[in-house]
Amino acid sequence: MSEPSLGGPEIEGLIRLLAKLPGLGPRSARRAVLHLIRNKDGLLTPLANALHATAAHVVICATCGNVDTVEPCTICQDPRRDGSVLCVVEEVADLWALERAQTYHGRYHVLGGTLSALDGIGPDDLRIPTLVGRARAPEITEVILATNATVDGQTTAHYVSDALEDCTVAVSRLAHGVPVGGELDYLDDGTLSAAFAGRKRINDSP
Amino acid sequence: MSEPSLGGPEIEGLIRLLAKLPGLGPRSARRAVLHLIRNKDGLLTPLANALHATAAHVVICATCGNVDTVEPCTICQDPRRDGSVLCVVEEVADLWALERAQTYHGRYHVLGGTLSALDGIGPDDLRIPTLVGRARAPEITEVILATNATVDGQTTAHYVSDALEDCTVAVSRLAHGVPVGGELDYLDDGTLSAAFAGRKRINDSP
Repeated sequence: MSEPSLGGPEIEGLIRLLAKLPGLGPRSARRAVLHLIRNKDGLLTPLANALHATAAHVVICATCGNVDTVEPCTICQDPRRDGSVLCVVEEVADLWALERAQTYHGRYHVLGGTLSALDGIGPDDLRIPTLVGRARAPEITEVILATNATVDGQTTAHYVSDALEDCTVAVSRLAHGVPVGGELDYLDDGTLSAAFAGRKRINDSP
Repeated sequence: MSEPSLGGPEIEGLIRLLAKLPGLGPRSARRAVLHLIRNKDGLLTPLANALHATAAHVVICATCGNVDTVEPCTICQDPRRDGSVLCVVEEVADLWALERAQTYHGRYHVLGGTLSALDGIGPDDLRIPTLVGRARAPEITEVILATNATVDGQTTAHYVSDALEDCTVAVSRLAHGVPVGGELDYLDDGTLSAAFAGRKRINDSP
């Protein structure tokens, strides 16, 4: 017996496509479609238009790998940004996370993933050669490695650090430690060890 | 300080709209948008087109309240469907769930919600009057109440059952009991009580 038809081919096609988004499966895609249909003018049509606008205008910045609707991207263009520091991240999502924290005001370099022997991802599949090229520019003084604190992220950071050896730049990585608001009882051993090893003195007496 | 710009106004607008879908929040909406941008031709553009097609063609069936792209809906039109039985459900999602189970071959009536004094939803806000009208048709012999087994669903079923008193139709409701594949240890007391009360004899001896 064939699958029953739910509301015609347009609606079925929409469910199938929405189910491909990360975080959504067939069940939540069906719920989302019914929600969209109930809010046709407020959500369904605006969402369709927003997707078309994004598809028409999105570009990957050739300099840093960020996604934007201008090329070079807003961050690469912004003259108020510190042009002497590059922050290396795995994905655009990481760049967005750092931007939301509003703590870094230099430029970025998005690798586009991590090295992975298992998945056959080598240095040339990432934006490592272009990073080395950018780091050679005389104005660059520091490269901050902000890859994830995972095995793949750290392996990639090591590789990038080696690749930058010829460039006359300081190479640093983000500090490990207790997350702000974190409770020791819930932290893994690796984080606790890193927090101890990286402890900072807070008084002045001898 | 204002919120940092993530990838231009088109992308920000798309994130805001996607975050309104049930099951998605700001974080998963951002992940979904990056996934869409990475799969521009395979997902972003097809999804935009599917949403436009749905917005252009979706109609709510005036007879039963189902959503479809034809009016009356595919189920109301289908001559192979049993026209003597109506299955009353709260939402289109419930209708879809029953269609996937492929166990019911009659027609439906979607109420559009449940009665709720708290939310100010009365009988006239649901499709109860039209249900009574349909149930008066001479060909209808049975109305199956398939509202959810929640307090609101059961209250609504009681109300609908009373409203159908004048119609010469059998009114039934779905059986309660142990879900197929369910383990007694994980079931709530109400379900276990219902399963005991509804037990069926399976032998013939006295």
